[in-house]
Amino acid sequence: MTPKTAPEWQIAEWINTDQPPSLATWRGRSVVALAFQMLCPGCVSHALPQLQRVRDAFPEDQVAVAAIHTVFEHHEAQGRAEVLRAFLHENRIRYPVAVDEPGPDGMPLTFVDYGMQGTPTLLLIDAAGRLRMQKFGHLDDLRLGAVIASVVAEARQIDEADAAS
Amino acid sequence: MTPKTAPEWQIAEWINTDQPPSLATWRGRSVVALAFQMLCPGCVSHALPQLQRVRDAFPEDQVAVAAIHTVFEHHEAQGRAEVLRAFLHENRIRYPVAVDEPGPDGMPLTFVDYGMQGTPTLLLIDAAGRLRMQKFGHLDDLRLGAVIASVVAEARQIDEADAAS
Amino acid sequence: MTPKTAPEWQIAEWINTDQPPSLATWRGRSVVALAFQMLCPGCVSHALPQLQRVRDAFPEDQVAVAAIHTVFEHHEAQGRAEVLRAFLHENRIRYPVAVDEPGPDGMPLTFVDYGMQGTPTLLLIDAAGRLRMQKFGHLDDLRLGAVIASVVAEARQIDEADAAS
Amino acid sequence: MTPKTAPEWQIAEWINTDQPPSLATWRGRSVVALAFQMLCPGCVSHALPQLQRVRDAFPEDQVAVAAIHTVFEHHEAQGRAEVLRAFLHENRIRYPVAVDEPGPDGMPLTFVDYGMQGTPTLLLIDAAGRLRMQKFGHLDDLRLGAVIASVVAEARQIDEADAAS
Repeated sequence: MTPKTAPEWQIAEWINTDQPPSLATWRGRSVVALAFQMLCPGCVSHALPQLQRVRDAFPEDQVAVAAIHTVFEHHEAQGRAEVLRAFLHENRIRYPVAVDEPGPDGMPLTFVDYGMQGTPTLLLIDAAGRLRMQKFGHLDDLRLGAVIASVVAEARQIDEADAAS
Repeated sequence: MTPKTAPEWQIAEWINTDQPPSLATWRGRSVVALAFQMLCPGCVSHALPQLQRVRDAFPEDQVAVAAIHTVFEHHEAQGRAEVLRAFLHENRIRYPVAVDEPGPDGMPLTFVDYGMQGTPTLLLIDAAGRLRMQKFGHLDDLRLGAVIASVVAEARQIDEADAAS
Repeated sequence: MTPKTAPEWQIAEWINTDQPPSLATWRGRSVVALAFQMLCPGCVSHALPQLQRVRDAFPEDQVAVAAIHTVFEHHEAQGRAEVLRAFLHENRIRYPVAVDEPGPDGMPLTFVDYGMQGTPTLLLIDAAGRLRMQKFGHLDDLRLGAVIASVVAEARQIDEADAAS
Repeated sequence: MTPKTAPEWQIAEWINTDQPPSLATWRGRSVVALAFQMLCPGCVSHALPQLQRVRDAFPEDQVAVAAIHTVFEHHEAQGRAEVLRAFLHENRIRYPVAVDEPGPDGMPLTFVDYGMQGTPTLLLIDAAGRLRMQKFGHLDDLRLGAVIASVVAEARQIDEADAAS
């Protein structure tokens, strides 16, 4: 199976960063991204702490980490920026967080483009911008560490081949 | 130390119940109550699941269980009823939840009356309406189970003494 | 259901105590005892750490804590005292540990007298020497704390009644 | 730092395998090995379950998994084969387990050759037989998964280079 290029995200707003990133600007690094909703208990108890562990375990110049707030339900409760900012403050989340652009029918556009089934959903995009993994629900730390390192190792291999040629 | 009577709560609104309870109507049962905020990570990950375990472990006719949403920060994010309702729905919380009455300075009244230091705070009130424990932060399940059962046992003892006299 | 008197244990050897206790000498205190085998993974990972939490949570003058090594399989591996002593040392177990008396058919006598089904099995004996709970497998901390406190509270009630009469 | 070739293990006995392996026979695959003692609580509760997760997460043709029983204390308790066999049976360990060859002073030879400080100690050896990691104590799953995958990826890269030349 050939991995396809990950669609660029459609983002209404970026939080925790002065320079809004994009898949294009991240090219050359692997990207681990978590689509979440602040009222999703599995996101708060498991997926967001796991994403922080990813941030702590991998160097920033190899792995970019971000979260995408993809509100597809309870818009009146989750859909306001000040609620999300308070949530990020209380959960001590300091990596970049994107707000998925709301669509006309209430479904956020990036959520729809990626065909997500719900939250939490973890995305792994390689240094060439290709979507290598999309996982809805729980993924254990051992397998997650392995798949990230495996994609990072490929990027290094390509770099070395480039340098040698 | 003689335990003092627990001050009656000052509640703006009750959720998950048709008949708003009060410490007075609960007299005769022990009450385990958790003061929480929906954006407090320790409340979501630990204290609210623990309160659910209390609800599951003790019979309703001996132990009443409730949560009090005591918003003392991030009012703009946590202070609206529809946000709290969505939070309770997603966290599958079905026992009665009280909204602590906001005070003039933004500090909720029950929070102030009890001299709470933050959230989560666990309250244990005995069948005679006296405050027997107030604990800010984490309390392990073994000690919590023990202190609840101990207060429940006292109530039963008093009932038996009354029945015998 | 009227609880029956707990049968006295049949013990080959006591470890971690100068004065071998018995249910008779413990009368007046509640007793929490764990029947275990050192090669039972659930005993090592869950039940013995839980028993240590019981020891830490309840005062010694109200609750006696002990473990019973009930070897009913792998006798050649688990049946020697020096192996058990090394195990207790490495697991930092300092409360009294009894070695269940081996029976003629390889089944230990106390294990048989109590009709145990396997290990771990938790026993709760009240201050009057009656068996109040016998639980094979896992029991969560909240319920365990509650049942111990409930039996302890009864004992205190009886003491007070005696003192008053 | 150039990784050095991992010293061949000195093994008294292999369990759970008909064909005793060696670092030489494993060449071409990465090897994750855990030095443990059956009476070490951290080994039983954490390190051995983690090794099982490694076995489950990586394919056998890429990663070999083994444990080494390195008895350096409590020889009289841990040093007999029937005790170890019973332990492995109860802990449902089915991958190959080596018994480290006892030395003249009671210190096992492989333990000494690797300069180990205690148990649990995790070893990671790459497909070329070089020692890439030696970790005494706890290593979290995310980092362990990453370091194994990283070493596996290198091996694959070398294979591909060989195939291309």
